[in-house]
Amino acid sequence: MVNYVDRETILCISLAARPSNHGVRFHNWLYHELGLNYLYKAVAPTDITAAVAGIRGLGIRGAGVSMPYKQDVIPLIDELDPSAERIQAVNTIVNTDGELVGYNTDYVAVAALLKSHGVDPDLPVAVRGSGGMAGAVVAALADHGMTGTIVARNAETGPALAERHDWAYSAEVPAGARLLVNVTPLGMRGSEERAQAFADDSIAAAELVFDVVAYPVRTPLIEAAERLGVPTINGGEVVALQAAEQFILYTGVRPTQKQVEAAEAYANLD
Amino acid sequence: MVNYVDRETILCISLAARPSNHGVRFHNWLYHELGLNYLYKAVAPTDITAAVAGIRGLGIRGAGVSMPYKQDVIPLIDELDPSAERIQAVNTIVNTDGELVGYNTDYVAVAALLKSHGVDPDLPVAVRGSGGMAGAVVAALADHGMTGTIVARNAETGPALAERHDWAYSAEVPAGARLLVNVTPLGMRGSEERAQAFADDSIAAAELVFDVVAYPVRTPLIEAAERLGVPTINGGEVVALQAAEQFILYTGVRPTQKQVEAAEAYANLD
Repeated sequence: MVNYVDRETILCISLAARPSNHGVRFHNWLYHELGLNYLYKAVAPTDITAAVAGIRGLGIRGAGVSMPYKQDVIPLIDELDPSAERIQAVNTIVNTDGELVGYNTDYVAVAALLKSHGVDPDLPVAVRGSGGMAGAVVAALADHGMTGTIVARNAETGPALAERHDWAYSAEVPAGARLLVNVTPLGMRGSEERAQAFADDSIAAAELVFDVVAYPVRTPLIEAAERLGVPTINGGEVVALQAAEQFILYTGVRPTQKQVEAAEAYANLD
Repeated sequence: MVNYVDRETILCISLAARPSNHGVRFHNWLYHELGLNYLYKAVAPTDITAAVAGIRGLGIRGAGVSMPYKQDVIPLIDELDPSAERIQAVNTIVNTDGELVGYNTDYVAVAALLKSHGVDPDLPVAVRGSGGMAGAVVAALADHGMTGTIVARNAETGPALAERHDWAYSAEVPAGARLLVNVTPLGMRGSEERAQAFADDSIAAAELVFDVVAYPVRTPLIEAAERLGVPTINGGEVVALQAAEQFILYTGVRPTQKQVEAAEAYANLD
């Protein structure tokens, strides 16, 4: 069938070195469901400066920003929303009449999940990972009133992230951790898909396990937590919620929880 | 229904101050008909320099260029095809791995129509108009071996266009013209839709009438020519053929004449 596109159609894009189909399917499904004349297209930019110029010059309404561009775009846009300012990483650009504002909906999504799951701020946390996404997750944890330990092999980014929030840094998972958070590729589809980010004894001692890995949603960590009877928050929830926040920023329309779940399910059919 | 777009979808756009739906409907219809994973979107750029940067930076495969950008884009791209070099006007940009080449498919379409209609190069021509499109038309006529008179009210662009091709310039239609060509908005939908670009006596003395106006295809000039039994070439043929040439440049696929006609008919349903 012919794509429903006309001269009024509002274009949103994603910018990623290796685009996935998730955003394309999630957003286009909701545009259709809600009768919005929008279109979402994934782009692998050849030059991020030219790409951001193109967002302005072509009147593109919004852009999702993935690795490795989350920092690169900061000097190219006009303003940072507090969600992005806080962690100096942008995953969403909104263009309002040529004024480009950067947001971080990963931060927003993690903060919202900590609230909606009623996470006790007094639980000592262990976060495995110190990359860009870990920055967003730890900021949301800290802003939820939590403190803990960054567990990372990287002896530069690990201590730096810990220091930024006055947390501890360790190469090993500390014994007292009650919330375990994985923000590494351990358990992700690919070469490390069989790796379990935390050992069974750490999981058994925890009150909650949070895995940011979304592909697949059922990682070895999530499966081990379920086996051991420990509650979980999974990466699918993060991905769906951050995409829904992007959707709201682009369109001004808030989909229902049911619609978000259906869009996420459609996105994962691919 | 959900737009069929995935991460592999190749994006083409048009750049116009006031985008029409013609290109959107023509190209998207053919993409579907031929099973090509392409998408075409009309854009009203806010800044042509940023827009062309965006073509590069976002890896957009092709862009139709309309008024007032046909000259503006020349310093922004890498190379001119002879069709655009000849008249210093670009209506099509093709992006091959970041190398932007400008074409003029209006020129190509008019040249092809003169051939396919078997137009006798010895007919004296009168061309009404001296704007950007007239430049493409007169170049194609001259390259077909024809000579004649530019009839234009504009005392700057009219004589300049005539001089470029060693043609005559006149404010009035010369008596000896045998091919009459209209490249003004006379007869076009809007304030001048009832204007007949050439008088009945000029038409009656001609062997062929060529109206570049496409909206509507049946202008007062075309209707008068038919009434007087004079053969015609109409603007619909130009629009369809130039769009088909763009399509071939973007996709490398040549649609059949029947497919082009069907796409054009679909484009005009809007």
